[in-house]
Amino acid sequence: MKIIQSTLARIKPVNQELLQQAQARLDNKTKPPGSLGRLEEFARRMAAISGNLTPDTSKKVIFTFAGDHGVTDEGVSLYPREVTSQMVFNFLNGGAGVNVLARHVGAEVRVVDVGVDFDFGVTFGMLHKKVARGTANLAKGPAMSRAEMLAALTVGIELADQCRSEGINLVGTGEMGIGNTTPSSAIIAAISGEAVREVTHRGTGINDSALENKIRVIEQGLAINQPDPADPLDVLAKVGGLEIAAIAGLVLGCAANAIAVVIDGFISTAGALIAAELHPNVRDYIFAAHRSVEVGHGFMLDRIGVEPILDLNLRLGEGTGAALAMSLIEAGVKVINEMATFDEAGVSH
Amino acid sequence: MKIIQSTLARIKPVNQELLQQAQARLDNKTKPPGSLGRLEEFARRMAAISGNLTPDTSKKVIFTFAGDHGVTDEGVSLYPREVTSQMVFNFLNGGAGVNVLARHVGAEVRVVDVGVDFDFGVTFGMLHKKVARGTANLAKGPAMSRAEMLAALTVGIELADQCRSEGINLVGTGEMGIGNTTPSSAIIAAISGEAVREVTHRGTGINDSALENKIRVIEQGLAINQPDPADPLDVLAKVGGLEIAAIAGLVLGCAANAIAVVIDGFISTAGALIAAELHPNVRDYIFAAHRSVEVGHGFMLDRIGVEPILDLNLRLGEGTGAALAMSLIEAGVKVINEMATFDEAGVSH
Repeated sequence: MKIIQSTLARIKPVNQELLQQAQARLDNKTKPPGSLGRLEEFARRMAAISGNLTPDTSKKVIFTFAGDHGVTDEGVSLYPREVTSQMVFNFLNGGAGVNVLARHVGAEVRVVDVGVDFDFGVTFGMLHKKVARGTANLAKGPAMSRAEMLAALTVGIELADQCRSEGINLVGTGEMGIGNTTPSSAIIAAISGEAVREVTHRGTGINDSALENKIRVIEQGLAINQPDPADPLDVLAKVGGLEIAAIAGLVLGCAANAIAVVIDGFISTAGALIAAELHPNVRDYIFAAHRSVEVGHGFMLDRIGVEPILDLNLRLGEGTGAALAMSLIEAGVKVINEMATFDEAGVSH
Repeated sequence: MKIIQSTLARIKPVNQELLQQAQARLDNKTKPPGSLGRLEEFARRMAAISGNLTPDTSKKVIFTFAGDHGVTDEGVSLYPREVTSQMVFNFLNGGAGVNVLARHVGAEVRVVDVGVDFDFGVTFGMLHKKVARGTANLAKGPAMSRAEMLAALTVGIELADQCRSEGINLVGTGEMGIGNTTPSSAIIAAISGEAVREVTHRGTGINDSALENKIRVIEQGLAINQPDPADPLDVLAKVGGLEIAAIAGLVLGCAANAIAVVIDGFISTAGALIAAELHPNVRDYIFAAHRSVEVGHGFMLDRIGVEPILDLNLRLGEGTGAALAMSLIEAGVKVINEMATFDEAGVSH
């Protein structure tokens, strides 16, 4: 717990004065005040988060955390469990959705094994941070021990600390884990008190009867584990996932290191929600990439208090939405850094 | 009228078979079917429009058309008329919003003088296509003669033809013209029959009393000119603008040349609306970049039958929203071109 307490202690609210100074700078650019809408918000927030009125987003990194889930024994996903490790190799070969979109926006993808049920041996090009070979089946008991949960959380925190030392100002989250919409729905149900049915959806595309089964499995998991909604780490350990814990740690670590973090879709937002429940200022550092097709996502976004950037009916995960949103945030940063002022351009105002 | 008739005759519906073949290709990629949402729609449509299952979006061009408006005599804008020509120089120097965002997404900006009330003489780096030094005051009579309107429309058509010969598959529209939300609101009011009040908004940011004046000016313009809603070119000439006519021509020309065209915000959509009213298949080639803050924009998008890609509270114009949306369309194209298939990646499915 020591690293978590010390990380929480480092989280500060963003500098309100910088927000105002950034807006004043934007208002001198050759455009009607406010006419670039949310791009101006992105520029303002990036200035305040990074403590720099001309923020640098040249280094952008997406962390794609992979983990397996014992709850796949209950038939909650359309795909077999082996797909998690198979997709890790796809990430490493550059052929997955997140690779394509990250290349498109000039971001680097770092693949992190935090809990895949596969022995990667000496596989190069990935970060070996395995805490366990998947979680236990949350429908029958806790998904993780408290120690496993803390270890996975620490993986994320340490990666954020590393970003700070590399001068990275914009980080994205992503994940791969067959079955991981199930723990994500369980987390928002546990924390918000909403009915499981209201926050549970089709994941990779399950049919009506599989959805009914998934709802029943989550209800059973919550009944058996009795996670304490006032203790986010208890919820995370009992009904979460190793990659979700790592994302929670990454988000906490980004907030502690004054790094902007772009959360991807439903599963990433579950991790971010845990982080936001732990400290009220975490949300100052979060950008929500997009509004997922998963119905529980809106509840998470509302509870964190963030407005998604994109709404493109995405539901792939991996960090695909984060990649696209990072490019829009960078566009806002370029507006404040590169646009001419009225005086520079000789434009009447 | 000859060039317009021949352009209309060249517009064909997109190939439905290619839409299906593109979706089949997307369904073999390493992701749950449909999970990349609208990116898949963009990929599918780009394949069908370009007639190529691996579309090439390496060359992207945004045309920013500039024109002045006689109706600025009525005090409809916050900014003086000189700002149109001043902003043209800002575009040529690379300091405006559209320059910054186009650079960000790897698109070229081509600035076209189709009706600025300024003598640019031998200014380099722009396309000199001036039809007139601004429109006449639409509150007192027709904004353009039919000949002027046709000349401006032809400018756009010829630029699209030129794109075809350059191998450009993705074009964006943009504009600059102090006062040009006024003719845009007049166009949608004339074509849809909606009350002027329902489709008129604050443009660059006018206050309540200026908005009331703007509504009155448009109502007066419609009453005096009596544009025929069944004749889109009559509407365009009487209450439109030179840059709006050029955009209408560009959109028509793109459809005729099987080039995808990304329309920017309120003013660009007014031009696209004229084009879409002239031929039912024009909409097959249109991507709507974003939902503008201008309240009349939704009426235009609904009438054309297109769903905007972004919703970022933008209201700058110039082609800024088009630049951002072009990058998302290109992202979809890269998904179909670059993602690994299940077989290639050895992923179970």
